[in-house]
Amino acid sequence: MSDLTQDGFLDGRLLIAQPVRGYRSGADAVMLAAACSAERGQSVLELGCGAGVASLCLGWRVPDLRLTGLERQANYADLARQNAQANGIAMRVITGDLAAMPAELRAESYDHVIANPPYFLNGTCASDDGRTEARHEQTALSLWVDAALRRLRPDGRVTLIHRADRLDAILAGLGARAGAIVVLPIAARPGREAGRVIVTARKGARTPLRLLAPLITHQAPSHLRDGEDLSQQSADILRAGRRINLG
Amino acid sequence: MSDLTQDGFLDGRLLIAQPVRGYRSGADAVMLAAACSAERGQSVLELGCGAGVASLCLGWRVPDLRLTGLERQANYADLARQNAQANGIAMRVITGDLAAMPAELRAESYDHVIANPPYFLNGTCASDDGRTEARHEQTALSLWVDAALRRLRPDGRVTLIHRADRLDAILAGLGARAGAIVVLPIAARPGREAGRVIVTARKGARTPLRLLAPLITHQAPSHLRDGEDLSQQSADILRAGRRINLG
Repeated sequence: MSDLTQDGFLDGRLLIAQPVRGYRSGADAVMLAAACSAERGQSVLELGCGAGVASLCLGWRVPDLRLTGLERQANYADLARQNAQANGIAMRVITGDLAAMPAELRAESYDHVIANPPYFLNGTCASDDGRTEARHEQTALSLWVDAALRRLRPDGRVTLIHRADRLDAILAGLGARAGAIVVLPIAARPGREAGRVIVTARKGARTPLRLLAPLITHQAPSHLRDGEDLSQQSADILRAGRRINLG
Repeated sequence: MSDLTQDGFLDGRLLIAQPVRGYRSGADAVMLAAACSAERGQSVLELGCGAGVASLCLGWRVPDLRLTGLERQANYADLARQNAQANGIAMRVITGDLAAMPAELRAESYDHVIANPPYFLNGTCASDDGRTEARHEQTALSLWVDAALRRLRPDGRVTLIHRADRLDAILAGLGARAGAIVVLPIAARPGREAGRVIVTARKGARTPLRLLAPLITHQAPSHLRDGEDLSQQSADILRAGRRINLG
């Protein structure tokens, strides 16, 4: 594996080793953890846990969780195990592919499933508008949502963070199998369109969807200086580890 | 038909006869018209046009449109014809059911289709959470979206306003047959969740979805007095007939 950095999350409360090159978790993983309503003692599965940032942020906030991470790449799975241990948070990490769910996970169901699916599943960039590519990505995203729903207990809750422009694919994946859907748009600045969405849903529920007011991550209407201009709400989540209450 | 009222729309620029009892158009119809990007000379079909408010607001803003309204209830269709004539706006109104599309409309395709589908299709209230009811409504809403897509020319644009909690059903109805979807949440107050959504999409397009910053209709954080507290943006749309630019 390439060189590692030690990155502070939650204002340094967590120290996470991540590769210098390759996939590196950031604010999205912290927001995902903040949006998960898991309570003390519950079980949580993270699909594609990478180096473990989202699960470990959640484990930092909520005591006595039974955390499980599934990660396809063995080097990231190893990092997640090391990061859990280094931060004193119990987390089981399984190396495996959600498209071929390991037998030990197929035998289990969870109170919560969380995921931050890859934004460019085939490694192309957003400006590539090839139809084949888009179709591949869509198929892959639907696999993530399907795997999440399968691993939930009845009435269990899935929570995802993803690109806002894939909201239609996420909702299509949830389909009739989940309800009580809550959509939280995340926008960089006041008045801007959403760049990310957090979507949560309850397996088997029939309650109607709710579309919340956006979470604005930066307070100034545009980028004014290189320094810090996180909104208060965003700083509370990213620094103080505050929960995002989706009701 | 029951007694009529004469209601001013667009600050009295349109005078619309509506029944005292039964379905009465309001701000939603005006917002629907504002969100339609029809240009001079184009054809527009409104599904379920009622007394004609949305189409006539659109005809007031954009010159030389070829406006067609489809309305199942003959008394509302008659009102729409009378309202068009009284306001000096050319509009053809067909009495018929979108679930059994009249042959003369089946023979046509349109640059734009607009609709404000009924919010409670079987006349029940929102607090009725019966599953059968919800399923009926969902079926019916999908019929509206399907009928709209069928009547569009390739690359034509559908624009809908509906309850925000049906966003998932609307997007499911659009499915893979439309793209360039734009979702505009409409919230009553700053920080509140959306009560309505405007959704527009282009038939056959592949461009990704965009989730815009919400349109806030009232400026105060809560209802302070009985008087007027429309936001400036909302007043511009409802009074001055300004277009909502969805990009």
